[in-house]
Amino acid sequence: MESFHAVIPAGGAGTRLWPLSRASRPKFLLDLTGSGRSLLQETWDRLRTLVPADHIHVVTGPTHAPLVREQLPELTGLLVEPAPRDSMPAIGLAAAVLGRRHEEAIIGSFAADHVIDDVAEFGAAVQAAVAVAETGLLATIGIEPRNPSTAFGYIESGERLDVDDAPSARAVTQFVEKPDEPTATHYMRSGSFSWNAGMFVARTDILLGHLARLQPHLAAGLDHIALAWDSPDRQAELESTWPSLTPIAIDHAIAEPVSLEGGVAVVPGAFGWDDIGDFAALHALGQTSSPDVVWVDADGFARTEDGTTIAVVGIRDAVVVRTEDALLVTTMEHAQRVKDVPAELRREGRDDLV
Amino acid sequence: MESFHAVIPAGGAGTRLWPLSRASRPKFLLDLTGSGRSLLQETWDRLRTLVPADHIHVVTGPTHAPLVREQLPELTGLLVEPAPRDSMPAIGLAAAVLGRRHEEAIIGSFAADHVIDDVAEFGAAVQAAVAVAETGLLATIGIEPRNPSTAFGYIESGERLDVDDAPSARAVTQFVEKPDEPTATHYMRSGSFSWNAGMFVARTDILLGHLARLQPHLAAGLDHIALAWDSPDRQAELESTWPSLTPIAIDHAIAEPVSLEGGVAVVPGAFGWDDIGDFAALHALGQTSSPDVVWVDADGFARTEDGTTIAVVGIRDAVVVRTEDALLVTTMEHAQRVKDVPAELRREGRDDLV
Repeated sequence: MESFHAVIPAGGAGTRLWPLSRASRPKFLLDLTGSGRSLLQETWDRLRTLVPADHIHVVTGPTHAPLVREQLPELTGLLVEPAPRDSMPAIGLAAAVLGRRHEEAIIGSFAADHVIDDVAEFGAAVQAAVAVAETGLLATIGIEPRNPSTAFGYIESGERLDVDDAPSARAVTQFVEKPDEPTATHYMRSGSFSWNAGMFVARTDILLGHLARLQPHLAAGLDHIALAWDSPDRQAELESTWPSLTPIAIDHAIAEPVSLEGGVAVVPGAFGWDDIGDFAALHALGQTSSPDVVWVDADGFARTEDGTTIAVVGIRDAVVVRTEDALLVTTMEHAQRVKDVPAELRREGRDDLV
Repeated sequence: MESFHAVIPAGGAGTRLWPLSRASRPKFLLDLTGSGRSLLQETWDRLRTLVPADHIHVVTGPTHAPLVREQLPELTGLLVEPAPRDSMPAIGLAAAVLGRRHEEAIIGSFAADHVIDDVAEFGAAVQAAVAVAETGLLATIGIEPRNPSTAFGYIESGERLDVDDAPSARAVTQFVEKPDEPTATHYMRSGSFSWNAGMFVARTDILLGHLARLQPHLAAGLDHIALAWDSPDRQAELESTWPSLTPIAIDHAIAEPVSLEGGVAVVPGAFGWDDIGDFAALHALGQTSSPDVVWVDADGFARTEDGTTIAVVGIRDAVVVRTEDALLVTTMEHAQRVKDVPAELRREGRDDLV
């Protein structure tokens, strides 16, 4: 594990969790689970059980960099991207910079805003993925599904691979998008599908090699930036090159095409995992309502950030979230559509509320 | 009209309008219609078009007396009842006190928390009711129903009476409680039913005569208090006698039994009227939501008292009311059950929120 570096892209806005999640304090900076630690800090804590602090790197934007530094005082590897260009440029930048510094580097990317309930199992899965990555494969961790969720993408696994220290590794047959319910039930029953949690582990030379082949413009841009990174030209190069980089997710840029070539392996993750995609997910995780809620012929999730009392009358599966400056009222069924609220507020020029 | 005195019993809590209406600032003290005047002030303004200020009397409790005085600086006739005993003791007290002061007094009672949209029509109806009351009948104003509401009680009218200055007056056949929908539709079609708005006009001697016959204990108690009213013994007599008075509504105490004896007449009120019984009624009155509400696949009534933004997603006929210290979320369908919230809060000892 000495050559292993963890990368945490910290950029998601979490607009489905408005008004808790805001542009200025997005989901990953929030303590959504009531643990006393933000999702980013919990991600950090999990990775710190595996690697020293200087092997953990966070990629974030300039507006969130100060809060990231504040939340992670041990952090030395902060990579500030001038603007969000999706996950491939963020992870690719870390790979390019680390690949120049450490020839044998293996990097793994882990979202800043997911929850995981078993740190030991998570650590075991990462170690297995690193063992797989050492063989030159792009490794991913597939979460053993606990229900036929339609909220996540799935990974289909094929034949067992023969990797020392990762006996459970299998070839990835394909990545599939969020399925409908009958398909998800079929996936679940088949036993050969796992949830795609976006955790990828690879040698930097392998990752950048795939990128040079599949996204040559993006790879060249990242290479330019990495060359200037540890020099006084870093900021100038970033500012001139970053805006031209193709905005694309790592799944589409590399994972999916390489899986079709047989270059991706999956190791099972036997831990509870969720991306807390919306308030229904947060509620399903067992997050309870604020103490002062009065339910009259009603149930659901109700939280107030300002200590006031909430009363819900006659609404099942209600979702009520009150902050000092805003209020959301919906139901579990419509929790995904909450993202339309900040979108509408932005259209109306109410950027202070987004 | 020189002998006419208006009485405004101001005691209703309006618990169905929680959290706007509170024990400390009940519905009648609120500007629910956005007119800039509270419901009590609007009631006052309507009556002032008919009588001088010293002919308007407000009966209220000791906790609300200071705010009533503040809202009605012209008011001279404030009657403070030590505790609420329903409408008959409140109106009976005013009748007993005024009957002693003015032998020919006619009093009319008008709720402090109703809305009326046509002051001229209201005034004409009151004048007709006073003309009827002069003949010795108990007069009521029946509101011409605009829809088959199940939220109000109804008055059935019979034969036309022959009263000068009130040609449209009819005998009341019966008062009926809130009907179910088919019955309300039948009432509406029949043309002989009107809404009971609780407006009663009578000579004080007639009113107190009925009371002495039908509720002798209550009548005797009120007589004792009235005797002491304009003397230094007022407070002592009030405190010793008031708690023993029968708590009863004027409808049950007098209007219903006297109607069966043929002693009640109704004059039609051709004006818009509502008792704003709940938030569905307030919304139906055309009360619009706060300006900063974002509706996503949703509609209804949403109001914030603290200037914050409300977003409602995926809920039809929503009712959302945010005050500084509380929040109500329900739907129009369940608007009547809002009264359960302050009841529950009281059980929990949260009297500060009631």
